[in-house]
Amino acid sequence: MPSYEKIALGIDPGTATTGYGVVAQTAGGDFELLACGVIRTEPHTAMHQRLRELFEDLRGLIREFQPDAMAVEKLFFGRNVTNAISVGQARGAALLAAALHDLELAEYTPAEVKQAIAGYGNADKQQIQEMVRRLLDLPAIPRPDDAADGIAIALCHLQTQRYRQLVDQAG
Amino acid sequence: MPSYEKIALGIDPGTATTGYGVVAQTAGGDFELLACGVIRTEPHTAMHQRLRELFEDLRGLIREFQPDAMAVEKLFFGRNVTNAISVGQARGAALLAAALHDLELAEYTPAEVKQAIAGYGNADKQQIQEMVRRLLDLPAIPRPDDAADGIAIALCHLQTQRYRQLVDQAG
Repeated sequence: MPSYEKIALGIDPGTATTGYGVVAQTAGGDFELLACGVIRTEPHTAMHQRLRELFEDLRGLIREFQPDAMAVEKLFFGRNVTNAISVGQARGAALLAAALHDLELAEYTPAEVKQAIAGYGNADKQQIQEMVRRLLDLPAIPRPDDAADGIAIALCHLQTQRYRQLVDQAG
Repeated sequence: MPSYEKIALGIDPGTATTGYGVVAQTAGGDFELLACGVIRTEPHTAMHQRLRELFEDLRGLIREFQPDAMAVEKLFFGRNVTNAISVGQARGAALLAAALHDLELAEYTPAEVKQAIAGYGNADKQQIQEMVRRLLDLPAIPRPDDAADGIAIALCHLQTQRYRQLVDQAG
């Protein structure tokens, strides 16, 4: 792997499907997509075994790409409490993988992700995906959606850190 | 440690406080409390570090007592979704610890716990605690409540397994 300024692992956690994106920032300030995809676990397997699979796959990604930070969405659920427990469990496995590898952990609201990538917090999904494609100079929008969400949050983290650095330098 | 038929680790998971009880069943069919307590994590620490603490403390208990199974409550939440995510995360860390040590995982509803310990599913907290005290031949009701809850679910698991064995033998 060439040397990068920073690498972020973005995660969109779920028990059945966890999307991820590994995005690097080059010394010149460009973004590069190193990997993206989804981790799927078998529906008929016991929950603790599924969490173990997710956890170990994430640890595999961390070992391979050596990211500096894991970025996840801050969670807000309207109603579905059962889903909240299930996502909470998957999220727990992801956070644990970050902690065991001493990664920085960053959380962003959906509005913050949109703001960082498209410049405004009300951008729609399609606009975000197109901006992700452009920022990473990709031939097409990444698929499936969960993987694209993972990439978006990784990009959000790198962009946010860059803004902060600029603000710090300006102050 | 003397040899036991079976050892169950009961867990009442939460991010701030996780209660646990380690209960053994002797060859003679008696129950014995090996350990109980609470794992507390620092409120001002980052969530992924708190999950790591919880996870590692649970792994320490599993290594020390070598339980055959982990027992946790099945979760039903009425309303509080934020709490459901937080409990889900702690639960994810606990399930993961069970999976990594190849423990059997058993889940029981609150009514099943009450039924197994007090003989009826509508028993109140005090009745359950008194039955726990008697079944384990303890001088007093275990404190704090979270630890007592951990013990109760471990006992529920051992009782339930015994019933099933008896039913199997009768059939």
